[in-house]
Amino acid sequence: MTEGQAIARFLRRFPERGAGLVVGPGDDCAVLAPRAGTVLCATTDCVREGVHFGPGFSPEDVGHKALAVNLSDLAAMGAQPRFFLAAVELRPPARAGVVDGLARGMAALAKRHGCLLAGGNFSRGPGLAVTITALGELGEGTALLRSGLSPGDLLAVTGRLGAAALGLARLRAGHAPRSATLAQRRPEPRVAAGLAARGIATAAMDLSDGLLLDLGRMARASGCGATLWRDALPIARGLPARPDGLTLALSGGEDYELLLGVRARDWPRLQRRIAATGTDVAAIGVATARRGLRLAAHRDAVTARPLPATGFSHF
Amino acid sequence: MTEGQAIARFLRRFPERGAGLVVGPGDDCAVLAPRAGTVLCATTDCVREGVHFGPGFSPEDVGHKALAVNLSDLAAMGAQPRFFLAAVELRPPARAGVVDGLARGMAALAKRHGCLLAGGNFSRGPGLAVTITALGELGEGTALLRSGLSPGDLLAVTGRLGAAALGLARLRAGHAPRSATLAQRRPEPRVAAGLAARGIATAAMDLSDGLLLDLGRMARASGCGATLWRDALPIARGLPARPDGLTLALSGGEDYELLLGVRARDWPRLQRRIAATGTDVAAIGVATARRGLRLAAHRDAVTARPLPATGFSHF
Repeated sequence: MTEGQAIARFLRRFPERGAGLVVGPGDDCAVLAPRAGTVLCATTDCVREGVHFGPGFSPEDVGHKALAVNLSDLAAMGAQPRFFLAAVELRPPARAGVVDGLARGMAALAKRHGCLLAGGNFSRGPGLAVTITALGELGEGTALLRSGLSPGDLLAVTGRLGAAALGLARLRAGHAPRSATLAQRRPEPRVAAGLAARGIATAAMDLSDGLLLDLGRMARASGCGATLWRDALPIARGLPARPDGLTLALSGGEDYELLLGVRARDWPRLQRRIAATGTDVAAIGVATARRGLRLAAHRDAVTARPLPATGFSHF
Repeated sequence: MTEGQAIARFLRRFPERGAGLVVGPGDDCAVLAPRAGTVLCATTDCVREGVHFGPGFSPEDVGHKALAVNLSDLAAMGAQPRFFLAAVELRPPARAGVVDGLARGMAALAKRHGCLLAGGNFSRGPGLAVTITALGELGEGTALLRSGLSPGDLLAVTGRLGAAALGLARLRAGHAPRSATLAQRRPEPRVAAGLAARGIATAAMDLSDGLLLDLGRMARASGCGATLWRDALPIARGLPARPDGLTLALSGGEDYELLLGVRARDWPRLQRRIAATGTDVAAIGVATARRGLRLAAHRDAVTARPLPATGFSHF
C-alpha cells in the first residue's frame, strides 16, 4: 500500500460530512465552523506501541484507546466532543488489516460521541503510534478546571478504580482472557458525566496517571490538600481487597474515570445528575485546608495517615 | 528530569497569556475563544528523528520545523495562525538541552506569527518526535482549496524550488556548512502570502512532497491538468541548472512554498499583493482541460512533453 492508499482505506470508515465540518480530510487543513459564540476545548495525546500499549492490543483496541484518552480530557472540562484530527505512524509496509482495525475502533467510538474526523496525517515510524487532537465545545459556559477545589468540598469519582492497571498486569503476564483486559484496552470516556457535572462541580480532571498522583495535582493547583476514605473507594471487582487491590486503585493509572470536587450541599444533586447518565459515582473523600494527601479508614475516622503522591511519570 | 520538570522547562519559553487563550497549558484541555463568527482551519503534522530529520538538525531546528510545516498548511488555506498544541516524544533520559532547544526554535517562530502554545503532551518514545496541531482563523471568509483550479488559470509559486532537497542531500553527505542547509532545516511558512492570496487565488496548497506530486494532486482535485514552463521555474540558487537542478526543483520536496492558481486577469493584482508582503512569486504554467502534467520549454512553446507525477510517499 502507498501512503495515499492507506489514507483512502482509513477514511472509508468515517463520515465525509457532518454539522460544522465545512471541509474534511483531503485538503491542507480541515475547515471547521463551531457553533456561534462557543468556547472551544482542545487537547492532544498519543498512544505508542511499546510505551502505551503492547502485545494483546488489536489495531481496533489502539484506534479506540487513542481517541478515548482524548475524549476523556474533553469530558474532564465538561465539553461536548465535536472534531478530531489523527496523526498515524505505521511501520512499513503498511498493512490493510492494521489500517482497517485502527479506523474501525476509532470510528465506532467517534460515532457514539458525535465526534467527526476532520483531518490527519499518515507517516512511517518505528512502530504503530497514533497522536490525536480533539476539539470540543463548551457553548457559552465555563470549563471545569483542576484548580477550583476548596477546603470542605467533597471529592467524588466515577466508575471503579484499578481495573485498567489489573488488565495491564494480566496482559504482561500473558494468556489473559479478552474480557479480563477490557478496561485496559477499551476505556470509556465519561463524556456524559462530564457534561452533567458542568455548573455543579467545583473542579474536575480525568484519572490517567493514578488517583494519588492526579489528586495531588488537583490539590496543588487548588492550593489545598485532601483526605481519602479507604472504605469508600470504589475498587474494581476482581481486585484483591488489599494491600494489592488498594495499591492498584490508588496508583495504578489509566482508569480514565473523572475525579470531581463538589460543595457538600451540591453533592446529592451532582450524584443524581451523573447517575441519570447511567454512570456510577461515589464520594471518596474531602478537600482540606492542610496541604498533602491523607488516607482515613472511613468518613468518620478521627485519624488519617499521610499518603505519597505516587503514580506514573514518563521519564 | 521527570516528565513534570521537562514540561515546566519547555513552557518557560512561551507566553502564558494571549488574546483568545482562556486556559493555557496545565489543565486537561486548553480553553480557546476564537473571534466571534470566525471559521477555523485545523491541521496536524509530525516530524520524527530518522524519518523527517537526522544528523545535522539541532533541537532548535526540530522545534522550528515541526511548527513551520503546520503553519505552512494554514498559509495554504489563507488562514491566520492563532493557536497550536505540541505532542513531544523524547528518548529517555530527557535532557535539558534538548527540551530548551526545541522550545526556543518553536517559540521564536510562534512569536513571529502571533501563534500561541495552547497545550500539549510529553511522553517517552524511541527517538525525538514532535506532532503539532495548529489552528488558524479565516474570519468570515472562504478558505483557499486545492480543488478550485479551472482550465486557463495561471499557476504561480512563491519563493524558489529545490533548495530544501539540496540541503537534505548535503546533510546526508555530511560536513555541509550550516548556511547551505538552511532551507532544509528552517523552512519559512508563507503565512503573509497566503493571507494576501485570499479572495484572489482560485486554488492553493503548500509544496511538501515536490511540485510534480503536489501539482498532480491539485489538478486531480480540480478535475483538470497542467502545463509547466521550464524556463519560468524559479529554481533555487546554487542548484546545477539541469538535469539535476530541474529534478530537485520538480520532485525534491519540502520547499513549503505556496502553489497558487489564479485567473489570468487577476494575476497582476495577485503578484502585487504577494510582492507587497516581501515574498517573491512567479507564474510557472497554466491549468489545462486535458488531464495530466506536461512540461513545455517556455510559455509560448508549441509542444510539451508528459511529466510523471513523482514525489515523496511514506510507504
